[in-house]
Amino acid sequence: MDFKTVIRTIPDYPKPGILFRDITTLLGNPDAFRAAVDAMVQLYRGQKIDAVAGLEARGFILGGAVAHQLGVGFIPVRKKGKLPFTTIGEDYALEYGTDRVEIHTDAITPGDNVLLVDDLIATGGTAMAGINLLERAGANVIGCSFVIDLPDLGGADKLRARGMAVSSLVAFEGH
Amino acid sequence: MDFKTVIRTIPDYPKPGILFRDITTLLGNPDAFRAAVDAMVQLYRGQKIDAVAGLEARGFILGGAVAHQLGVGFIPVRKKGKLPFTTIGEDYALEYGTDRVEIHTDAITPGDNVLLVDDLIATGGTAMAGINLLERAGANVIGCSFVIDLPDLGGADKLRARGMAVSSLVAFEGH
Repeated sequence: MDFKTVIRTIPDYPKPGILFRDITTLLGNPDAFRAAVDAMVQLYRGQKIDAVAGLEARGFILGGAVAHQLGVGFIPVRKKGKLPFTTIGEDYALEYGTDRVEIHTDAITPGDNVLLVDDLIATGGTAMAGINLLERAGANVIGCSFVIDLPDLGGADKLRARGMAVSSLVAFEGH
Repeated sequence: MDFKTVIRTIPDYPKPGILFRDITTLLGNPDAFRAAVDAMVQLYRGQKIDAVAGLEARGFILGGAVAHQLGVGFIPVRKKGKLPFTTIGEDYALEYGTDRVEIHTDAITPGDNVLLVDDLIATGGTAMAGINLLERAGANVIGCSFVIDLPDLGGADKLRARGMAVSSLVAFEGH
């Protein structure tokens, strides 16, 4: 499937000059949603995966389906202050200020092979924070799987330079 | 599976006197996560379902997996200001103040049978707002599926009084 045809582009969102790639049109299309999840799973067939971690919030939709399809557990990597039990967190830089992702202190069984899932990789700040956090908790992050890559923003290259396997289903040039 | 054994209870969260039911322990358990998703799907086998809607954010994890398993599309019902395209929204009352859920104006094909999924039903405020919103967009909401019901808080009864089919995998008395 050509996933580009089912991803909507919204100009000037969230601010002028940005082309926002909207995957709700992909998610709402039964064939495209199934094909995207199945393609994400297929890329990691034959590798031992113990858990899927998803980045809040769109990574939950895809990551939940991927985890279920792989028959493994799901670990939510949440924004600051959303988890009820004791947490560890990792700060990361935004254009202005910082943000933070968190997991429960017992979310990871040390040594587990974890696949990180999100809808899109742009500059890679959130994904990098998620990887650092999962590794600090003892995970072996075996790869990062995205639907969309915006290669001109350099996030995927940054993750690869850190030794991470990165896959995406579609790439949009520009940003 | 006895889902109660894989749901963690956190006392005094988010405030004194509340027993918070934490499903991250269920999600992280491969057998329990698979069994929960499969049980949610099984309850609606034989009914025509065109799409699954999930309430942000935990409803995305379960709803994404249920939609994929059913082979239908997924509709994110998001908190205020999160969706990039034009939206319709529905306000609902909180203990103090109000909140709002939103969907894209083109999220629903009018007449589609939609199953609403979330992790937990308590007072039912968010679920009711989600149902109202989906119906205003033309959906035929054929049921609401939760992992956890807190029956003493009356949400499931409120939805049933509105004619809605409500299912849950486990109930905790008290709140």
